[in-house]
Amino acid sequence: MADGDIVLGANQYGKAECRLVRVTRDSARHEIEDLNVTSQLRGDFEACHTDGDNSQVVATDTQKNTVYAFAQEYGVGSPEAFLLRLGRHFTEDFPWVTGGTWSAEQYSWQRIVADGEPHDHAFARAGTETRTAVVQVDGADTFVISGLTDCTVLKSTGSEFSGFPRDRYTTLPETDDRILATSVTAWWRHGAPPGGSDHVEDLDFDASFEAVRAVMLETFATFHSRALQQTLFAMGKAVLEAFPGIVECRFSMPNKHHFLVDLAPFGQDNPGEVFFAADRPYGLIEAAVVREGVPDEPRAWAGIPGFC
Amino acid sequence: MADGDIVLGANQYGKAECRLVRVTRDSARHEIEDLNVTSQLRGDFEACHTDGDNSQVVATDTQKNTVYAFAQEYGVGSPEAFLLRLGRHFTEDFPWVTGGTWSAEQYSWQRIVADGEPHDHAFARAGTETRTAVVQVDGADTFVISGLTDCTVLKSTGSEFSGFPRDRYTTLPETDDRILATSVTAWWRHGAPPGGSDHVEDLDFDASFEAVRAVMLETFATFHSRALQQTLFAMGKAVLEAFPGIVECRFSMPNKHHFLVDLAPFGQDNPGEVFFAADRPYGLIEAAVVREGVPDEPRAWAGIPGFC
Amino acid sequence: MADGDIVLGANQYGKAECRLVRVTRDSARHEIEDLNVTSQLRGDFEACHTDGDNSQVVATDTQKNTVYAFAQEYGVGSPEAFLLRLGRHFTEDFPWVTGGTWSAEQYSWQRIVADGEPHDHAFARAGTETRTAVVQVDGADTFVISGLTDCTVLKSTGSEFSGFPRDRYTTLPETDDRILATSVTAWWRHGAPPGGSDHVEDLDFDASFEAVRAVMLETFATFHSRALQQTLFAMGKAVLEAFPGIVECRFSMPNKHHFLVDLAPFGQDNPGEVFFAADRPYGLIEAAVVREGVPDEPRAWAGIPGFC
Amino acid sequence: MADGDIVLGANQYGKAECRLVRVTRDSARHEIEDLNVTSQLRGDFEACHTDGDNSQVVATDTQKNTVYAFAQEYGVGSPEAFLLRLGRHFTEDFPWVTGGTWSAEQYSWQRIVADGEPHDHAFARAGTETRTAVVQVDGADTFVISGLTDCTVLKSTGSEFSGFPRDRYTTLPETDDRILATSVTAWWRHGAPPGGSDHVEDLDFDASFEAVRAVMLETFATFHSRALQQTLFAMGKAVLEAFPGIVECRFSMPNKHHFLVDLAPFGQDNPGEVFFAADRPYGLIEAAVVREGVPDEPRAWAGIPGFC
Repeated sequence: MADGDIVLGANQYGKAECRLVRVTRDSARHEIEDLNVTSQLRGDFEACHTDGDNSQVVATDTQKNTVYAFAQEYGVGSPEAFLLRLGRHFTEDFPWVTGGTWSAEQYSWQRIVADGEPHDHAFARAGTETRTAVVQVDGADTFVISGLTDCTVLKSTGSEFSGFPRDRYTTLPETDDRILATSVTAWWRHGAPPGGSDHVEDLDFDASFEAVRAVMLETFATFHSRALQQTLFAMGKAVLEAFPGIVECRFSMPNKHHFLVDLAPFGQDNPGEVFFAADRPYGLIEAAVVREGVPDEPRAWAGIPGFC
Repeated sequence: MADGDIVLGANQYGKAECRLVRVTRDSARHEIEDLNVTSQLRGDFEACHTDGDNSQVVATDTQKNTVYAFAQEYGVGSPEAFLLRLGRHFTEDFPWVTGGTWSAEQYSWQRIVADGEPHDHAFARAGTETRTAVVQVDGADTFVISGLTDCTVLKSTGSEFSGFPRDRYTTLPETDDRILATSVTAWWRHGAPPGGSDHVEDLDFDASFEAVRAVMLETFATFHSRALQQTLFAMGKAVLEAFPGIVECRFSMPNKHHFLVDLAPFGQDNPGEVFFAADRPYGLIEAAVVREGVPDEPRAWAGIPGFC
Repeated sequence: MADGDIVLGANQYGKAECRLVRVTRDSARHEIEDLNVTSQLRGDFEACHTDGDNSQVVATDTQKNTVYAFAQEYGVGSPEAFLLRLGRHFTEDFPWVTGGTWSAEQYSWQRIVADGEPHDHAFARAGTETRTAVVQVDGADTFVISGLTDCTVLKSTGSEFSGFPRDRYTTLPETDDRILATSVTAWWRHGAPPGGSDHVEDLDFDASFEAVRAVMLETFATFHSRALQQTLFAMGKAVLEAFPGIVECRFSMPNKHHFLVDLAPFGQDNPGEVFFAADRPYGLIEAAVVREGVPDEPRAWAGIPGFC
Repeated sequence: MADGDIVLGANQYGKAECRLVRVTRDSARHEIEDLNVTSQLRGDFEACHTDGDNSQVVATDTQKNTVYAFAQEYGVGSPEAFLLRLGRHFTEDFPWVTGGTWSAEQYSWQRIVADGEPHDHAFARAGTETRTAVVQVDGADTFVISGLTDCTVLKSTGSEFSGFPRDRYTTLPETDDRILATSVTAWWRHGAPPGGSDHVEDLDFDASFEAVRAVMLETFATFHSRALQQTLFAMGKAVLEAFPGIVECRFSMPNKHHFLVDLAPFGQDNPGEVFFAADRPYGLIEAAVVREGVPDEPRAWAGIPGFC
């Protein structure tokens, strides 16, 4: 290739949003796992792009079939474990597949209570939030990121916002008591020494998820907030302090504004009681919280909406 | 007017989707109520339509203001009680407003657990389902309908579908064991003697909602289903049997198909374990369950997506 | 049945949202039709609900198959013609099916321009709006309703709103020049003498749709508005005047508020130039426009979100 | 900071989705511009995160106000020009703001035809697609990316897919004639010599957008496709060949599967005529098309969903 030639740059492809429901029915007490799985491959796919030569294109239909076949053959376990198995398969079985991203959303269900007992095989969708997982493979290196999204939380007090700079376009009054509400999207990367992911695969991802989530929410609840940024950092710091195996966290947190309604025209006070919950625009606060000295690892975050 | 003249038919107008968050902060332990309120007026609005004469048009902005002002002055209580108050206000204060529909969605929150205790003023959105309420006023008559929507439930067994007619376009095999999944939208009308709604207003709508919901879900769980229609009817029957004050129920229940994946090409059995959760198309089952002899009351259902 | 027994009320069921794309390839110049079809049956389905007896339940899967088979056997033509054929089929072939609702959304495509000419077989989705059609069958009577939805229109002047009543909750200022914006959902019912639908079936629904749409939009554009209600009525009146075969129109039109931004704090005037387009809440204006003396026909509107 | 300390990583914040409608009313013939603007700042915001010190936090509310004030003071022009002005303002007026991302969606409107003429001040929303623009500032360097999203296109022939590898999970048959449909999301970066963006700012972005879009669609239409990847690359190559000022393109293109319906059970052939348009899962093809020798510039793509 000569300078100025038009060439293929970075690329990936795969099957997105394979909706998988796995029922475990070893006994009368069924278990249910409900995921939305996406598989994306990276590697040498240049001939397909430039010449329509598909001899190295593992069909996206094949990737989908593999998701369902693996669910039967190995079960799911945790989304992270399931994705790690998919990643190994594609990179080991197809020499020209040098990496990829495997990601999942997992939806939670709880047993319906009947006759005072959780039912054996009837479930109701639980929670508005979604658990997420991303596995990245790049050659010999594997990265595992766990997360959650649409976790909507609100504090009716314990939040203020003041001391910000005022220019000619500033009209916002300062406040020492407001509603703070956000919908947390968070990712946290598990420590995985490049070149060897044994440690990561042994992790109990289900237990880890519940523990990290609890720390995040508890910090949101108890931390007195002078800015959503400060709350975000406190949440990330609490997670990193509590879980040494976690290398870094990333957050994307919209500030879901709740505006105090002006009731003065109707002769009413409104001491922090009646709010209009606005849709748009909204503040959007995004940051990583990391351990000093840990090198950046952009390969771990490929394809994750980012900000750096 | 002469026959053939073009005239105004049925009509209503109002403000839709007033997002209201009400914090009760009488003590350090805050309470939160989160609603989406719609107010629609019916009455004599002909001059506005035909001549642009707005002298009887209570501005939709005024309807919105009233929602927020009432939330402060009276609190919310239950969505049904809040809507009844709005309905009375508009029909009593504006003589030409002869009726209307006031409806709400209510979102539930649960306290975040911190230090092992539910927190005083920090909350997380709970559940995927939404509680709904509709109040209809038509002259002297008031109707109250409670409901829920987006209540997604699934049975991993205890459901079959067979014995259906086969014509030249029928390919569906019979099954004696399938996943049954649906997203329940239900409405139930509380008994309200036309001309006197005292009884209805005294109801504890919050307790009623929880009790009706529990009966519906328990019936879904325990009833062996030979068709989603049969499950629907059983759910309605159970509610009407358990709650004599409820006059009728309506359900709209999509059959959220979970297709067993054919794993035979991969040499695998699939004994009811691995499913593809499909989006579209979906079955859609809708029915009313009523008490024999209770006359139809279409005015109660104005504006509610229906089928009769 | 005795009074007080719990019985099945109104009901219907079917397959919703069958996504159908039909390519006509009689020549090198392909035609494409893109629909979302829903079939719902009414009739004697009581045994299924009460006893799980499916011997009269035409499977929703069969209804779906019929949609695709008919698309091949007869083509689509217009959505109305396609739905009429489906309605006849189900009510004629299954004696216990006494009626139903067949509805469709149709998406429009335009040819991509290549080498200065519309391409033979490459298309781009056109327009944000969706054409809709509903066919109702009730015994010997058939009703045909055409419509559109998500047709978003805006006038940057030629709209005012004043003269409305002011109570203690009214804060809205009067205005003699505002943006008027709405997303039109409209339905219009074609004249069909009960008991004989021959006339309706002969209509050129495609030409009719374009003509009705043009009249609606032109009226929106040219009519000086003193309220969205007045604009709505003018649009319906214009349609009924222009098309004697149309019996009645219904509209559901949100008032998509565009709020003039207060730029005074920044030392700027804002003479109707800079607006904030709000999401929620929004005004919601709904009305029927009818011909005097034409009797109500609620059976034609079953299942269409209504207000009367 | 010592190694292992928990510190703030990359971060940004701002106001998202400011819905701006700008009417130009210099004459009776109004013009309308309709955008959704997001402003995000990067720089020294550490004290806010770690200590709740907001003295450098330009409030997101101020960012929003600036959007509306600038729309009035300077007009919009093109989304790129508008965003460039915002970027300059924030990085010049606040010394600690060293960069940021300013992005917009723009919605198109066409004049309603009345009396055979395009109307002066009445418009209908046009097209399903959305024009996008992103301006990145990083210190002295500015990057401008133009794009579009939700541009849905379909070819009813001229597409095949065969020759792909077959493993034990492969069931997809080869095809030499299929529907190819996708919803194009594309971005293209305008050449901007680092350290001097004068060239970029002089570009006629509106004309450029229309020209690039036309080349993309024409290539989609006329290029015989052996894989969606090949079509993607051809589209990017055509753009880079036609527009020397464009440095690189990125595409994210779902393969919107249209499955040929098996009508054999009904005794019907289906020679590429009747299709089921599926929702999920879908193929997802993503790639960059670049000029050989042009160095990667990840700063230009910060925050844009990516894959490398």
